[in-house]
Amino acid sequence: MAATAVSNKRVILKRYVKGFPSEEDMEVVMGEAPLMAVPAGSAAVVVKNLYISCDPYMRNRMTRHEVPSYVEDYVPGEVLTNYGVMKVISSGHPDFKTGDLVWGITGWEEYTLIDNPESLSKINHPDLPLSYYTGVLGLPGLTAYSGFFEICKPKKGEYVFISAASGAVGQIVGQLAKITGCHVIGSAGSDEKVNLLKIKFGFDNAFNYKKELDLNAALKRYFPEGIDIYFENVGGATLDAVLPNMRLRGRIAACGMISQYNLEYPDGVCNLFYIVTKRLRMEGFLVFDYYGMYHRFEEEMAAYIKEGKITYVEDIVVGLDAAPAALIGLFTGRNIGKQLVAVSQE
Amino acid sequence: MAATAVSNKRVILKRYVKGFPSEEDMEVVMGEAPLMAVPAGSAAVVVKNLYISCDPYMRNRMTRHEVPSYVEDYVPGEVLTNYGVMKVISSGHPDFKTGDLVWGITGWEEYTLIDNPESLSKINHPDLPLSYYTGVLGLPGLTAYSGFFEICKPKKGEYVFISAASGAVGQIVGQLAKITGCHVIGSAGSDEKVNLLKIKFGFDNAFNYKKELDLNAALKRYFPEGIDIYFENVGGATLDAVLPNMRLRGRIAACGMISQYNLEYPDGVCNLFYIVTKRLRMEGFLVFDYYGMYHRFEEEMAAYIKEGKITYVEDIVVGLDAAPAALIGLFTGRNIGKQLVAVSQE
Repeated sequence: MAATAVSNKRVILKRYVKGFPSEEDMEVVMGEAPLMAVPAGSAAVVVKNLYISCDPYMRNRMTRHEVPSYVEDYVPGEVLTNYGVMKVISSGHPDFKTGDLVWGITGWEEYTLIDNPESLSKINHPDLPLSYYTGVLGLPGLTAYSGFFEICKPKKGEYVFISAASGAVGQIVGQLAKITGCHVIGSAGSDEKVNLLKIKFGFDNAFNYKKELDLNAALKRYFPEGIDIYFENVGGATLDAVLPNMRLRGRIAACGMISQYNLEYPDGVCNLFYIVTKRLRMEGFLVFDYYGMYHRFEEEMAAYIKEGKITYVEDIVVGLDAAPAALIGLFTGRNIGKQLVAVSQE
Repeated sequence: MAATAVSNKRVILKRYVKGFPSEEDMEVVMGEAPLMAVPAGSAAVVVKNLYISCDPYMRNRMTRHEVPSYVEDYVPGEVLTNYGVMKVISSGHPDFKTGDLVWGITGWEEYTLIDNPESLSKINHPDLPLSYYTGVLGLPGLTAYSGFFEICKPKKGEYVFISAASGAVGQIVGQLAKITGCHVIGSAGSDEKVNLLKIKFGFDNAFNYKKELDLNAALKRYFPEGIDIYFENVGGATLDAVLPNMRLRGRIAACGMISQYNLEYPDGVCNLFYIVTKRLRMEGFLVFDYYGMYHRFEEEMAAYIKEGKITYVEDIVVGLDAAPAALIGLFTGRNIGKQLVAVSQE
């Protein structure tokens, strides 16, 4: 392949974010693409980005941290990075060849030079939608799977509550819980999402938290027996309402707290003494710790999808120009299902 | 023994408590003692109370709960109950005979008729101070032992922080942590208590939290490497300051939250997102769940005491008249070490 320089549209961070992020914190610019062939002797690969994922945790990376955070800060002027699905267009690495479909960390741009291709995974089920590797077959899927099975340790018949339940992770947790034989109820921020939970994902019930004046009372109504497992995606007031409604020896898998990410001062949670009296276990986890189980997960999840046992709803915007708004939309709840950006046709 | 009625001084709850309890919420009255011999055919025992324990959890029982709490509410006009050390003075139960020394739930009074003596435990180490069975060899000891080993799962070399560290439970946790080879620092509410921690209990360090304007900064100073294990006795602002100072995969054993017991609206804890990013496990426990390991614990702890590996400081007031103030003193931090009441000479 000839080493031609082509243009490379990219999304950069314009400035560090305080409080609620806006589209203006990012900028879509035309850059110069990396060489379309890797330099001789290099073990790098060049990829064409097909799909990129929009994830709430990216908000954390848009702030400058004095003490290093659990993920690296983005740098103003530099391209955003996150998980995506890519096609190898040039490879100096023995494990990858031109045309390979892979997923892993890439740039929010058309073409990316990846110096450490060991971080990439081959796509083993290209018969499924490739975009699924940003979601149900990618990190959100592994997050749901590892968090639910490894942290919640569910038993058949248990009562499961999931917040942000129609999101990238929540919809999978709910369906895994149903497969496990649990009774599953989810909350979401619109009636449309609530319908999705009930009709599409087979939740036993679901409610629109924005329509509940008293979340504690709502949970009492939906869980008269109490909650065995709470899959925590939102934090703040929801967590506070959940705690008194937990059953003895209940488990809370703390996956994320999206309601808190844009607050300068996080909300206070007052009901923690229930952790003592109800002998609760609240445990945080990050999917990075569970990479080791990815292949087992990928095979199991692909089989569920092919058997129709798990379905997945995506919210796909087309083109990098739409990427900043798609990312911001996660925090207003604009997305229905997993938010991602289709960057290029294969 | 003749069935003579004798007087029986007792401490009753005068009224349900809201907010901070006071001595006036209780009343010391003269009642009539139970028969000094159990009725014929009964399997009850009559005990003479020697020591009774003052414990923070009793505050919870002084409030009327609409929804039943984890412990039964006291009833105004009725005698307070809690763990104590007693001598059997009459028995209709085959397992107990007059003169036996036992510990278990009894009344805050001179003599108590106990209908279910199966709830009592024999004292297997009467060569140790009998009062220890309200503390280091009783529930506080088992609380420390089960919470530290079963919930915290400590490893040699780990960094342990204990709040209310000179209290009935904290002083034992600290010494068990030292026996385990941990680095142990405690906080307490007076310089006298801090000295006790450093000099008497062998903590690696200790500080007076009332003298720290910025608890977070204090913890950073005392734990430059971070905290692996936090044994939580106080809740509120201390918990909030601890969370950012926890190390990856740290554990928080939620034993009690004494700073919150007298508040109508508990304090909000804002730093819970660290549970996610640091993959923390926060787990509540109640000693009632660990009765099954009592005998193993009793033998191990008695041996530590006899070998001089564990020492125990008690704050003993004499006579039931002093009991209400002793109980209230737990919430102002007046006690130095385990608070108990010596009711009668053996």
